[in-house]
Amino acid sequence: MPRKIIVIGSGAAGLTAASTAREHNPEALIDVFTEDEHIAYSPCAIIYAIEGVIKDFDSIIMHTPEYYKEKRSISVHTRTRVAAVDVDKKTVTLTDGANIPYDSLVLAAGGKMFVPPIEGAKLPGIFTIKTVSDGKAIKAALAATDCVVIVGAGVIGLMMAVAVRNLGKKVTVVEMYPNVIPRIIDEDMAAIVQKHCEGLGIHFIMGTPITAIKGNDRVESVIAGGKEYPCETVIMATGVRANLELPNSMGLEIGQLGAVRASTTLQPYRKGRLVNDVYVAGDMIMCQSAATPGPTMSQLGSTAVRQGRVAGINAAGGYATYPAALSPWVTYLGDIQAAGTGLSKGLAEYFGLSTVEGKATGLTRARYYPGGKSITAKIIADKETHRILGAQLVGGEEVTGRINWLTASILKGATVEDFATSFENAYCPPTSMVKDVVNQAAEALMERLKAASDRKPN
Amino acid sequence: MPRKIIVIGSGAAGLTAASTAREHNPEALIDVFTEDEHIAYSPCAIIYAIEGVIKDFDSIIMHTPEYYKEKRSISVHTRTRVAAVDVDKKTVTLTDGANIPYDSLVLAAGGKMFVPPIEGAKLPGIFTIKTVSDGKAIKAALAATDCVVIVGAGVIGLMMAVAVRNLGKKVTVVEMYPNVIPRIIDEDMAAIVQKHCEGLGIHFIMGTPITAIKGNDRVESVIAGGKEYPCETVIMATGVRANLELPNSMGLEIGQLGAVRASTTLQPYRKGRLVNDVYVAGDMIMCQSAATPGPTMSQLGSTAVRQGRVAGINAAGGYATYPAALSPWVTYLGDIQAAGTGLSKGLAEYFGLSTVEGKATGLTRARYYPGGKSITAKIIADKETHRILGAQLVGGEEVTGRINWLTASILKGATVEDFATSFENAYCPPTSMVKDVVNQAAEALMERLKAASDRKPN
Repeated sequence: MPRKIIVIGSGAAGLTAASTAREHNPEALIDVFTEDEHIAYSPCAIIYAIEGVIKDFDSIIMHTPEYYKEKRSISVHTRTRVAAVDVDKKTVTLTDGANIPYDSLVLAAGGKMFVPPIEGAKLPGIFTIKTVSDGKAIKAALAATDCVVIVGAGVIGLMMAVAVRNLGKKVTVVEMYPNVIPRIIDEDMAAIVQKHCEGLGIHFIMGTPITAIKGNDRVESVIAGGKEYPCETVIMATGVRANLELPNSMGLEIGQLGAVRASTTLQPYRKGRLVNDVYVAGDMIMCQSAATPGPTMSQLGSTAVRQGRVAGINAAGGYATYPAALSPWVTYLGDIQAAGTGLSKGLAEYFGLSTVEGKATGLTRARYYPGGKSITAKIIADKETHRILGAQLVGGEEVTGRINWLTASILKGATVEDFATSFENAYCPPTSMVKDVVNQAAEALMERLKAASDRKPN
Repeated sequence: MPRKIIVIGSGAAGLTAASTAREHNPEALIDVFTEDEHIAYSPCAIIYAIEGVIKDFDSIIMHTPEYYKEKRSISVHTRTRVAAVDVDKKTVTLTDGANIPYDSLVLAAGGKMFVPPIEGAKLPGIFTIKTVSDGKAIKAALAATDCVVIVGAGVIGLMMAVAVRNLGKKVTVVEMYPNVIPRIIDEDMAAIVQKHCEGLGIHFIMGTPITAIKGNDRVESVIAGGKEYPCETVIMATGVRANLELPNSMGLEIGQLGAVRASTTLQPYRKGRLVNDVYVAGDMIMCQSAATPGPTMSQLGSTAVRQGRVAGINAAGGYATYPAALSPWVTYLGDIQAAGTGLSKGLAEYFGLSTVEGKATGLTRARYYPGGKSITAKIIADKETHRILGAQLVGGEEVTGRINWLTASILKGATVEDFATSFENAYCPPTSMVKDVVNQAAEALMERLKAASDRKPN
C-alpha cells in the first residue's frame, strides 16, 4: 500500500514538504489542502508586484495545481478548508464533511495578519499584505490614493513604504517602537536605515502607536500620538501571528510565544507527548533558537522551505531534523540593503546577556575602484565567552553573502578572536576592500575586548 | 629608549606591519626601506589602470611617503636597497654602506615575477605585471599593439586578457595546463570561465607551454605547440616566486615550497631555531595551510594585510599569531565573477584525499525578480569525515560574500551536514533565491553521500 500523505497549507512550508516527500517517496499519494486561491507564490514578491518592479501578479505565481499534478503527482486542492484533524484515527475532515485518512500529516497552515483592535480598524481602505488578493486590492486602491499611512516600521512596513513612495504617493509610517525594524536591529543601525528612507521622502512618526482610524464610509485619517494624519489608504504591517485554529482544535501544545511547540523532528506535542505521524512547519510553529537557550519564531520564507524539507522527509518515512533557527534576514530599501542575524544588542539584553560590540564602516569595493558603496557592519559578542551572538549590516550592495557568512560563523560557535585572526576574506578591487568591513568590525570588537581586559585589576 | 622597528618592503604586508606597529606602539621609531619608487598601491589595481577603468596610475596610489611621515610618524625610504641583515648584531646594512640597528625587524620583501627561461624571453615587447612602472610600460606599449599574447591563464592572466580585450586588441592566452585558473579550480568550473572569456573574443591555447619568443629588435611572435602566433606584445602572467635574496643571505630556512619557513608568530628559522626579533610576512613566506596538514603559500593581498598586522603587532612588542591560510580569492572577468577557497578536487587528490562533491546552478535573485544572473556553486568534501575541504563559485554577482561564508565554514570545521541542515541563508527576492545556491550545492552533496552510504554492504 502506498503511503498516504496529507499536507495542510500551500505556502513555502507546505509545498516544500509536499515536493520533498515526493522526492523521497515516489509511490506515496500526496494531497495538499489549502484555503488559498493561488498557490506557490512568494509573499515577499507581492510588494514588488504592487510597485510594478515585477510586471504582474501572475509572474510571481511559480506553479499551478496542474503543474503539481502533472510534474510531481501531487494533488493540490485549493479553496478547500480542513475543519478538523483526528490524530488518533488519523483522519482529516473537510468542511464539506469528507473524511480522509492519512498515514502522515504535515500541518503548515501558516500565520494570520495581526491588526490592532482599535477604533475604525475595519473601515474600507485598510489593507493587510499577505495574499495575492491583498496585493491586487492594494494596487487597485493606490490608483485612487494620494496619501498612505503604513502602520509598522518592520521590514515589511518599510518595503511597502518604499514601494508606495516609488509610486509617487505621500507616505507616512507610524511605529510604536522608537526605531525602525525594532528589536531585531539596534538603534544605531536603525538610524542609518531610517535616514535613508527619509531621504526617499518617507515621513516617520516613531514611538507612537496608532490609537484610531477615522472615516465615514472609508478611511479618512489615522490618529497617533493625539494627532490626526489624513490619508485615503492604510496598510497594516503589524506582524503575523501563528494560525492556531486547527492546532487548538487538535489539542496541540501552544508554546510561550503563541505558536505550536515542535520537537527537533518537527513533531507537535499533545498532553506532553509527541504526536505520531504529524509534522508541523512554517509560520505557525515555535522552534529552538540557535542564538540563545529557549524557543524562537522564525517567520521567514527561507525558514519555511528548510522546515518544509524536514517535515516532508519525515512524512515520507525518512528521517531529518531541524536543529535550530538563527533567522538571518535581508531586505532591499531603495538604494540600501539591510540585514541581520542572531541577536541584536537589545534582544541579548532582554535575554540577560552582557555584550560587547564592534562596528566598522567601509566600502563595498576598493577605495580607488569606481562605484563603491558605503557599508556598515556591526558585530555583537558575549562579554564572557567572546562568542558572536549577532550581527547587523547596512550597505549599498553585496550584503546577503556577508550576513550568511556571519550566520554560519555564529552557528559554528565562532568567537570574535576566530573572526579577527582566522577568518580570511576574498579580495578583488571591484567586489571588496582588501580587509572586508566585516573583518574590520571583528577587529574593532577584539580591540575593545582587549582594552576591557587590560583595565581589569590583577 | 623608544623601540627601533625596521620594515623591509613597502607592499601590503610591509606597510600594514608598519602602520600596525605604530598603532600598538606610539613611541617606536619606525623606518621602512623599499626598492620601489611608488608605495602603497594595490598591485591588483594595475590592470584596471591599464584598461582605464581606473583613470590613472596616480589614483591607485593611496598614500605617499610624506603621508606616512606626517600622519603616522613612519619614515619610508624609497629606492633604497637593503644589502644585508645581521640578525646577531641586529643591524641592517644599506647598499650605500649605512649600518642601522634595530630592536625588531619585519622582512616583507615580497615576490619576483617568474619568467620561463625560454629563447627570446628578454626581447623588448615582453612585460610582467607587478609594479606601477610595469603598468605604465604596458599601457604605453598597448597603444601601438594590435595582437597580444598573454602567457598564463591564472587569475592575473585572465584579468589581463579581459582588460586588453576591452581595449579592442586581439588577445591569445597560452596556458601549459589543460584548464584556466589551473590547480585552484577544477575543470568543470574552469570550463564555465573559459567559455565566458571566449565569448568576449579571447582566444585560448590550452595544455601547451610556450617554447620560444621570436623577433629581431622586438617581439614578433610566440611559439607554442610547434605553432607560431604573431603578436607585438607579450605579457607574462606566469606567477610570482618568493624573493629570496635577503633570506638566503641571512641564512633563513627555505621551506619545501621555495619560500621562507615561518612560525605561527611569523618568525623565521635559522639552523632549526627561531630567529629572535625578526618577523616575516607576505609573498615571500610559507605558512600553515588551513585546508590540509602541511605548508602553503598564500600570495594574496588579503593575506599580506593579515600577516602584516601580526608581524606589526609582534614587532611592536605585542603578541599575535597567524594560524593558517585557506586563501579565499575572487576575481571579476567581464560579466562574471569567479572565486574559490580551500582545496580544489585536483589539489585534494594531490594531497591523497578522496572527495565527494556537490554542485548546483541557480540565480542570484528570486526566479521571478528581474535581473537575476546565473551562479554555480561547487562544494568539495572529504569522503570519510564529510568535512568541507573547498568550494568554487562562478556567477554574475554577489560571489564574494558567498566565498567568505564557505571560508569561515571550512575554518570552523563544518561538515556537509552542518551546511545542509543548519546553515540558513538570508533571503529577499532582489538579492537571493529562497534557498541559496550554496545551500543547494550542500544539499546535493549530502544526497550523494547518503546514496553512497546506502550502497555500502552492511
